[in-house]
Amino acid sequence: MNVKERLADYAEMTEEALNRYLPEIDCLQKSVIKAARYSLSAGGKRLRPALVMEFCRVCGGEPETALPAACAIEMLHTFSLIHDDLPCMDDDDLRRGKPSCHKVFGEATAVLAGDALAMLPFQIIAEAGLKKTLSQDAALKIIKLLGELSGVFGMIGGQTIDLENENKQPDVSVILEMYRMKTGALLEFCCKAGCIAAGAGAEKQLAAGSYGQRLGLAFQIIDDILDVTADEKKLGKPVGSDKAEGKFTYVSAVGMENAKARAAELTEQAKAFLAEFSDNEFLNGLTDMLLIREF
Amino acid sequence: MNVKERLADYAEMTEEALNRYLPEIDCLQKSVIKAARYSLSAGGKRLRPALVMEFCRVCGGEPETALPAACAIEMLHTFSLIHDDLPCMDDDDLRRGKPSCHKVFGEATAVLAGDALAMLPFQIIAEAGLKKTLSQDAALKIIKLLGELSGVFGMIGGQTIDLENENKQPDVSVILEMYRMKTGALLEFCCKAGCIAAGAGAEKQLAAGSYGQRLGLAFQIIDDILDVTADEKKLGKPVGSDKAEGKFTYVSAVGMENAKARAAELTEQAKAFLAEFSDNEFLNGLTDMLLIREF
Repeated sequence: MNVKERLADYAEMTEEALNRYLPEIDCLQKSVIKAARYSLSAGGKRLRPALVMEFCRVCGGEPETALPAACAIEMLHTFSLIHDDLPCMDDDDLRRGKPSCHKVFGEATAVLAGDALAMLPFQIIAEAGLKKTLSQDAALKIIKLLGELSGVFGMIGGQTIDLENENKQPDVSVILEMYRMKTGALLEFCCKAGCIAAGAGAEKQLAAGSYGQRLGLAFQIIDDILDVTADEKKLGKPVGSDKAEGKFTYVSAVGMENAKARAAELTEQAKAFLAEFSDNEFLNGLTDMLLIREF
Repeated sequence: MNVKERLADYAEMTEEALNRYLPEIDCLQKSVIKAARYSLSAGGKRLRPALVMEFCRVCGGEPETALPAACAIEMLHTFSLIHDDLPCMDDDDLRRGKPSCHKVFGEATAVLAGDALAMLPFQIIAEAGLKKTLSQDAALKIIKLLGELSGVFGMIGGQTIDLENENKQPDVSVILEMYRMKTGALLEFCCKAGCIAAGAGAEKQLAAGSYGQRLGLAFQIIDDILDVTADEKKLGKPVGSDKAEGKFTYVSAVGMENAKARAAELTEQAKAFLAEFSDNEFLNGLTDMLLIREF
């Protein structure tokens, strides 16, 4: 089993489905659809959808059953990136090596494209529940979880803490709480939602959620490290942008060596939770790959 | 039966529930919660929640059954107002006579507060379905409908057309299509969602949706009329702001007298659809009240 190949397979399934969920249509409001599709297609690794589908698979479900939830989290993640890049937020001109949404379509359209991608995820999961490709109970549980982990006690809360601490030197506990909400929450969603789609029980959901939280924290710390050390071409955005934006990161709080050690430790903790799942070769490989990534 | 009294009763139920759904909590991200609560509490007439609960009642359901959907649409409407007022959108400093969200909390927090209020609606309907105060099937149908009528083919689409036509003289058919999506869609949601919550059949849903669409169109045309003629204090925002923002409205397209006649005609058409519901005294009274409103 080759990790990169399966990741590419999941990415292909995701991209095909995203295209179906939000096709290009000639209508009076086509600019907002174009803008949302532009950012959705700037895709990256499609890590989140892969986690959703793989957790469904390791719990005995068909990956396809989890495809609506997989696309939902990719849309929601994309919405957060579009709004994060806005001039009044992080004011980033580049995203994954391409001009960010508001640089291409203007600020107002970018706000609306983000808004559309914040709501469509819930709709497509509900549709799957009504079409019975997902059980009604699973669909409602996934929608509830998505709301909880994206909202003021999840991703939005984390972004708020991030904003509140610009040009400050927050305590390391504040930084970790921010990462838990800003990045960990959505990865926790991915892993749990896959289990719920497969109809797995509470124990598997709990282990998957704990894995996702650790993975998210490690992922964010590695992002901080790469912001200092990466090759700008590979990263797809200017190196050192955190510092330029007045952001105090885990690396600036504890130093580079401690940050690297913590990321490795979190990765090991994350992998320990995978023992709950018997067919975990891909997930273990993926976890390692994310630790040693260069972008 | 007094229309204003029942409207006030529904408003009280709504405000009590909104407060429960998003309580003030002391946490690191409290600013985004404060900002969302600030805009939610600036409430106005709570027309949308009243429509949801009343349509549930006239279909034989308990208004309480529809309370989650009623709060959901009020949150979603509030999110649209917060983002609409942003400097990159309509750049409005006042909303319902109070400083708009971004004037009080800053642009970044206003974006995030809007985002939170775009997602929470779906979560609270899913929770009602899981708690079985609403049937699972009704919860999923309401979530799907909310997504459809808020997204790129509903409210967001309408706002996009609005933006695209600033400082232009669009055809009157474009203006009406924009109003249908921007205002009509959410009112269509209110009326249909109330029927779905009560378990009503397709005929009642269709009549309710048609009523909501006409009411929405009339409501928006009356907004245009008031933007020219109203008392600034009653309106809670500067008179003539559409013109100042380069907006070509239905009034500027067809003239004041034609606009007034069209609003009255749409109101009569809307009321004709109410014949589908036997106990429609409140809805008829409310429809009349909205036509003769001064703000």
